[in-house]
Amino acid sequence: MLPLALTMGDPAGIGGELTLRAWAAKSTAPFFALDDPDRLAALAERIGLGVPVRAIASAAETASVFPSALPVLPVPLAAPPTPGAPDPANAPAVIASIERATRLALAGEAGAVVTNPISKAVLYKAGFKHPGHTEFLAELCGVPGREVMMLAAPALRVVPVTVHVSLRDALAALNAGLIADVARTAAAALRRDFGIAAPRLAVAGLNPHAGEQGALGREDAEIVAPAIAALRAEGIDATGPWPPDTMFTEAARARYDAAICMYHDQALIPLKTLDMHHGVNVTLGLPIVRTSPDHGTAFDIAGTGRADATSLIAALRLAGEIVARRAGG
Amino acid sequence: MLPLALTMGDPAGIGGELTLRAWAAKSTAPFFALDDPDRLAALAERIGLGVPVRAIASAAETASVFPSALPVLPVPLAAPPTPGAPDPANAPAVIASIERATRLALAGEAGAVVTNPISKAVLYKAGFKHPGHTEFLAELCGVPGREVMMLAAPALRVVPVTVHVSLRDALAALNAGLIADVARTAAAALRRDFGIAAPRLAVAGLNPHAGEQGALGREDAEIVAPAIAALRAEGIDATGPWPPDTMFTEAARARYDAAICMYHDQALIPLKTLDMHHGVNVTLGLPIVRTSPDHGTAFDIAGTGRADATSLIAALRLAGEIVARRAGG
Repeated sequence: MLPLALTMGDPAGIGGELTLRAWAAKSTAPFFALDDPDRLAALAERIGLGVPVRAIASAAETASVFPSALPVLPVPLAAPPTPGAPDPANAPAVIASIERATRLALAGEAGAVVTNPISKAVLYKAGFKHPGHTEFLAELCGVPGREVMMLAAPALRVVPVTVHVSLRDALAALNAGLIADVARTAAAALRRDFGIAAPRLAVAGLNPHAGEQGALGREDAEIVAPAIAALRAEGIDATGPWPPDTMFTEAARARYDAAICMYHDQALIPLKTLDMHHGVNVTLGLPIVRTSPDHGTAFDIAGTGRADATSLIAALRLAGEIVARRAGG
Repeated sequence: MLPLALTMGDPAGIGGELTLRAWAAKSTAPFFALDDPDRLAALAERIGLGVPVRAIASAAETASVFPSALPVLPVPLAAPPTPGAPDPANAPAVIASIERATRLALAGEAGAVVTNPISKAVLYKAGFKHPGHTEFLAELCGVPGREVMMLAAPALRVVPVTVHVSLRDALAALNAGLIADVARTAAAALRRDFGIAAPRLAVAGLNPHAGEQGALGREDAEIVAPAIAALRAEGIDATGPWPPDTMFTEAARARYDAAICMYHDQALIPLKTLDMHHGVNVTLGLPIVRTSPDHGTAFDIAGTGRADATSLIAALRLAGEIVARRAGG
């Protein structure tokens, strides 16, 4: 199986600690980091993690190195990182790590890209022009605008149709075609990458009570329902529009494989309320496999040894499962 | 302690069964039903509940009757109810039950009004002109527009600033004055009725990540933050705007007594996802105490004996606690 490529993330954040802890956990498929080996070795010492770090020259060395040391494909930093104090001087290295991981995945040398958290604000100061991490990856893969975000936890998978926009802009952006496109991408990914032959999609309404026959808004009837009808006509098992407040109960969740949500918080409130630590961000719609932990750089606790690697480990495990499924399928 | 007044709700729904089961549970303060005694006795027999029903002539008889029978202040029905088939002919009785309970509470003969679920659609056909149950109660109490909804469960209390409107209309209705007014009502109720001397209010942002410094919408800075500043200037412990997706985790919930939410589903998704059965709807801002279960008429299972009275019992218990607290305070 191809090794997983793990990016650096912001070196002033908790990414380095998570990388070390994930290797120490020994519960994922083999991976290599695209990072600065010296800074990882120094960090391991600083926080008292006995993780040996070994520089490698190609992704292919991962298999032989991983059992005894963390394999690191060197991406040198311009300045020694200070935990909690992000430095725009290191932004080129942060970006290079993502670019190189993506190229290796596109070239078939890495099975998946797993990304550590970045700080957009820091990258913007260094001239980064993309709305976010995921959009940058879609651009690198040559499929800008095709990216779809899924948050997956053991209790729930959610796919927001609109993501990082204001609620007002989400209302303006929603239409039946967009909802159906996102749902199609989700259905295809559930079949190919999650091994679900006939995925069941529960499509959320937009308004309270899914509009209550128009009394609480017309979008559910005029936008959401037609999208569901189009999906069903194609043979996709989509149902809804469901009243948003009752579709995430335990009984309701048992009836679908993923919830298609209309806006960011409709998806992320139930996901994070149910499970703050095991959520994995999976980018659907790309030619490569990409997962990431469901949290940020946590500058406030970086360097203290208190970071929780549960979500990164879950991201590595899920990436490994998808790679194995694609290889076997 | 004054008895609680329990309304009929739609007699074709599960209200009657819930009333019988709540009496049988014997775990609430004494209450009387405003209902048709014959139909309750017939229903008890139909679903095999050995609940004796006794007509009373005044609320004051509740104390002596309640230990041995369900006290019922008669509200005659125009037609025998058929479970699952609501009949507009009975709408006047449904409304009369609510009116009479409210008058008894206003007159100091009942300690609180606890309402069984109604069907607005059925009442509208009979000429009911109010947007909903709660607005009708506010009108009966002479304080139209002052009503504020709280959903209370053991894990979480939420107070939506906008309630039964489309998401688009919620965006249009939100302003700093409204948010502060609702939060003030919530803080006063938490002090008076929930016994929390210095209530901590967590105010949700409107947009993803609470707007992310304006990148994801300006309302959090321009509307929500000023409301919080105004509340704090009055000595109310309000914090936020919090990113909506992370404010309902177990760790976050430990830091506040109620979440002030910007729209219906921001409040009700986490509440119902965490606890579908123990949520109680409490109407704040009225001169009377009013609670209700957090579900509807459930016409689909009415008359089958399968209704779950957990939420109505929780509503009766919470009403009893509030009445006791007001009496003692």
